[in-house]
Amino acid sequence: MSAEPAFPASAYPPPAAPKPTPRLTAAANPDDPVFAMHRGGKIGVSPTVNVSDPAALALAYTPGVARVCTAIAEHPELAADFTWVSNTVAVVTDGTAVLGLGDIGPNAAMPVMEGKALLFKLFAGVDAVPICLACTDPDEIVATVAALAPSFGGINLEDISAPRCFEIEDRLRDLLDIPVFHDDQHGTAIVTLAALRSAARVAGKELAELRAVVAGAGASGVAVTKILLRAGIGDIAVSDRQGLIYRGRDGLNPVKAALAARTNKAGLTGSTESALAGADVFIGLSSGTVPEPAIAAMAPDAIVFALSNPDPEVHPDVAAHHALVVATGRSDFPNQINNSLAFPGVFRGALDVRATRITEGMKLAAATAITRLVGANAAPGYVIPSQFDDRVAPAVAAAVAAQARADGVARR
Amino acid sequence: MSAEPAFPASAYPPPAAPKPTPRLTAAANPDDPVFAMHRGGKIGVSPTVNVSDPAALALAYTPGVARVCTAIAEHPELAADFTWVSNTVAVVTDGTAVLGLGDIGPNAAMPVMEGKALLFKLFAGVDAVPICLACTDPDEIVATVAALAPSFGGINLEDISAPRCFEIEDRLRDLLDIPVFHDDQHGTAIVTLAALRSAARVAGKELAELRAVVAGAGASGVAVTKILLRAGIGDIAVSDRQGLIYRGRDGLNPVKAALAARTNKAGLTGSTESALAGADVFIGLSSGTVPEPAIAAMAPDAIVFALSNPDPEVHPDVAAHHALVVATGRSDFPNQINNSLAFPGVFRGALDVRATRITEGMKLAAATAITRLVGANAAPGYVIPSQFDDRVAPAVAAAVAAQARADGVARR
Repeated sequence: MSAEPAFPASAYPPPAAPKPTPRLTAAANPDDPVFAMHRGGKIGVSPTVNVSDPAALALAYTPGVARVCTAIAEHPELAADFTWVSNTVAVVTDGTAVLGLGDIGPNAAMPVMEGKALLFKLFAGVDAVPICLACTDPDEIVATVAALAPSFGGINLEDISAPRCFEIEDRLRDLLDIPVFHDDQHGTAIVTLAALRSAARVAGKELAELRAVVAGAGASGVAVTKILLRAGIGDIAVSDRQGLIYRGRDGLNPVKAALAARTNKAGLTGSTESALAGADVFIGLSSGTVPEPAIAAMAPDAIVFALSNPDPEVHPDVAAHHALVVATGRSDFPNQINNSLAFPGVFRGALDVRATRITEGMKLAAATAITRLVGANAAPGYVIPSQFDDRVAPAVAAAVAAQARADGVARR
Repeated sequence: MSAEPAFPASAYPPPAAPKPTPRLTAAANPDDPVFAMHRGGKIGVSPTVNVSDPAALALAYTPGVARVCTAIAEHPELAADFTWVSNTVAVVTDGTAVLGLGDIGPNAAMPVMEGKALLFKLFAGVDAVPICLACTDPDEIVATVAALAPSFGGINLEDISAPRCFEIEDRLRDLLDIPVFHDDQHGTAIVTLAALRSAARVAGKELAELRAVVAGAGASGVAVTKILLRAGIGDIAVSDRQGLIYRGRDGLNPVKAALAARTNKAGLTGSTESALAGADVFIGLSSGTVPEPAIAAMAPDAIVFALSNPDPEVHPDVAAHHALVVATGRSDFPNQINNSLAFPGVFRGALDVRATRITEGMKLAAATAITRLVGANAAPGYVIPSQFDDRVAPAVAAAVAAQARADGVARR
């Protein structure tokens, strides 16, 4: 997920740079098993039909294929039945906000996009194609993706920096009649909402009475805030690197100004830390840090989601001294909040019903499906299923497909 | 291969339309095995690594993948080793000249592009991704493909109508540092040259003494003419739907004017048929027809390549009454001249040495490799290997790779 520093440079070292720059550390180390795993890439294109003799080739390719082309030209809806398009997703990035590494460019972004394609297939049987773009101008990205659209059943935008990502997604959703989904926003939002509902259950609190602080107003911070508001959370204060966002703060971009109008009912100003005093929930979606005293000052039975990768805003062991529920983005601690719980099932469900878009209702339905899998088993160390819980993608897909039908965006 | 009618409307019915229009015949027929073969498409994306537990996932995806991204950001050349890019080709079309069907659009073109991807994998282990574009403006196509380029090791342009295809390919070759290859042009040219050399051997004639007539000045006609000239053929007269192309003919576009300057030494005017009198070789790359008397008027031991699909310019059984060697594009007659003998091996060889482009020498080397496989076994019914001859792609790949090194365009 993309990250934006959320803490004022004066408060916590090291000072955050205005734009994340690549944290370059080491070239390929032959002893590192990561490089062995990635050699030659992690995905391939495979035939799904047996074409081992001239007769089969004459069906799959010329001359037979011309009859399929002709049928689709006459009846365009047949493309969904007789091509692979209806099972495909383009995983599109411009490489400007890759993991926590920042703007490392399209070539260096490819291993992440391949990994995403791998998970799409592994968890949901979706054929995903990584597309790393050589352009970063929003107009060029929109034009390129629109030109590609006939080749794919859906578009998963990935690791595109904020606030460009908002405009790019909005314009593509307006232009295209296939699902467009910026995973850093909506995947994170779905999984965070799912986990927060289970955490609230553990804490014996209602969502509507929770006061949350979201550190980070990048792609994921904005989307998490929006889905929590839609789900009915009590109040949220959002911070960026200048501190808390409030109505009338100077220099807010339109996205943040819209957030300010809907959040921070108390009109808090100042630092993230100050807002945490008495808060029920901390959600870290920044590349900053939060000191232990700020966590200690939260309300009883606090919920801490320190989601920065690879370094959480506060170490989970430290947070656990003061909070009832602690979640991170890491697989080596309990409660890993990872987008892979959402995006495979979301697209599986959308593709299954040939949805024209992914509605807000479909995102909420996905979150609800994940929370239900945890259900009454919710505990401080179990507010979200494992990535390898094979119930997740089918449950999300079914919920998303049903909601697509209810919302009138399903084509079958 | 794309086709352009080559016969004047006054000479042979039916009159050719200025632009091929879809020949739509039938919707999906459930009894047609072609549709069963295409249901759900013909290719998929598959993991090439085993990611079945959290430890493996932590290597293939976050957090481990960040180390690979970092290494590539520092040393961009590592992308070739640690992503799938160096084994991939984008098969790109705008759907304007699909098979003999004409401008059927990107959605209806997909079955052909998937078929191509299938053959890329089957014959040469190349991971090819079909990309059908929603734009037809050359500027937009060039910008889109250039934006995609970091995602692929090569670009195979396909079924883009002439003369736009020439400009698009030229501009992309100048812009990109990966191979760009318009298969309708160069694949056809390579295989046709390979077959013609074997046919000349059968006829006991030297290439330099052959006089050929090429019907069709679309993508394939132009490229075949150019490669035959480069290979040293005696003379060629090329015709389009206005008749023979000659120096000074009114209204020639720049591509045809350049052809006129290098072909038709005798300055023949008039019809394709008139030029065939006494000619050694007929190569049909049009959607027209040629009457039996015109074939009968050719030189002794004539060579007839009637390559229009699915209907050859002259039926091969008819041509065989008058010609020594007859080839078509069809799999149900001897001597099938099919691009699939060229493109898989050409890209395999280019990718193997990470070539920056495909030179004229590499195309000639590919043709020579194919001719050598036929060698002294050449006979009237065997001037070109079968598509299923598994010596072909490796031989072409080896020749192309060696020539890339000789031409200084190999990166390893």
